Amino acid sequence: MVEQEADEILKGADVSDVAFLVVGDPFGATTHSDLVLRAVNAGIKYRVIHNASILNAVGCCGLQLYNFGETVSIVFWTDSWKPESFYDKIKKNRDMGMHTLCLLDIKVKEQSMENLMRGRKVYEPPRFMSVAQAAEQLLEVVQNRRERAEEPAITENTVCVGLARVGADDQAVRAGSLREMAACDLGAPLHSMIITGRLHPLEVDMLKLFSSPEGLSGLKMTDSSTYVS
Amino acid sequence: MVEQEADEILKGADVSDVAFLVVGDPFGATTHSDLVLRAVNAGIKYRVIHNASILNAVGCCGLQLYNFGETVSIVFWTDSWKPESFYDKIKKNRDMGMHTLCLLDIKVKEQSMENLMRGRKVYEPPRFMSVAQAAEQLLEVVQNRRERAEEPAITENTVCVGLARVGADDQAVRAGSLREMAACDLGAPLHSMIITGRLHPLEVDMLKLFSSPEGLSGLKMTDSSTYVS
Repeated sequence: MVEQEADEILKGADVSDVAFLVVGDPFGATTHSDLVLRAVNAGIKYRVIHNASILNAVGCCGLQLYNFGETVSIVFWTDSWKPESFYDKIKKNRDMGMHTLCLLDIKVKEQSMENLMRGRKVYEPPRFMSVAQAAEQLLEVVQNRRERAEEPAITENTVCVGLARVGADDQAVRAGSLREMAACDLGAPLHSMIITGRLHPLEVDMLKLFSSPEGLSGLKMTDSSTYVS
Repeated sequence: MVEQEADEILKGADVSDVAFLVVGDPFGATTHSDLVLRAVNAGIKYRVIHNASILNAVGCCGLQLYNFGETVSIVFWTDSWKPESFYDKIKKNRDMGMHTLCLLDIKVKEQSMENLMRGRKVYEPPRFMSVAQAAEQLLEVVQNRRERAEEPAITENTVCVGLARVGADDQAVRAGSLREMAACDLGAPLHSMIITGRLHPLEVDMLKLFSSPEGLSGLKMTDSSTYVS
């Protein structure tokens, strides 16, 4: 919407106040910088009001924000399109001992191929990827890589965290193995998932608040008394 | 304060509501996880209210949040203690093309060595590191490394961003060379500084909003039409 309708949003903003509301912090998305540049180029003043963002709010699970590597996005696979690039970024983060926040796909105002081709403005119901769906896709990549005899960066026992509706009264946080994530139901959207890297004992203590006793059984202590799974 | 007085904060929290206010998002600091664990262990319920954080709000300068590497802290040097570890982290981020957010030191309720030894509860005036002070310390490390004939990861011309009072009506953002940062006065605290990595053309366009024409002269285009300095 922002991408296609930036000019529409800015129309009239030179003579009256126009507000553009977003989920999270306004600069989590590239397109919002683009909107600022268009406003400035049109001589329109702007003001940003910052907000809590999932990028920080994930800290509620007890993993330390400074231990996170690059954030990745996991998109809905289709029958013919199953990108695995998110796996390689998670691997890179884990190689450095860092956690990975996975932002999960949101599909709103999507048209079916048929409606798109026929030019019918009929939209599919919105879809929000759940932690279970994301974990299933990740497990499929793990299996693919195993078949290619790659060194495993992640296994079924890697400790993950599923989060739902963070910041809302009914937020849900679950820590456990990747296999557990694929089976969990955290309820209504929005969901996010974290793949852990190297864990500090304080982080492990926090994760225990959100885990079954078996949930963290994949963790092993390293020489430096941090944990990995 | 939280470190030493966690029990004091939690006192009475089992029978009445106690609020603990922080700057930024509550989980930006390790000690706040510790406070949660103490509460849970004491059977005290807790609720977190998330907030905007400098970790995201830095996006207002136009650098993309997903291009940031590990955040570093720059501490006030003393005559006898001049740690350089922040430089190595910045170098690591730049090697990967990532930007580095530098959080600048805050000294409140500090005692002079004399007052500490005499047990006098007299505190020094609060000190907040400015962008200029941080840039000066960084330039000193650059010079030290040059004398040791190290491959330079940063130079006087590396493009940086200074930010002050982000989110407030009088926030200030300045983009320019590290040398410029050492000479700039961004006014009252709190300050933060960013050392850029590889820049996308959209990021460069945004930085131009906060720069003099010469400020970005250190930038050079790479083969893949991104910029480095």
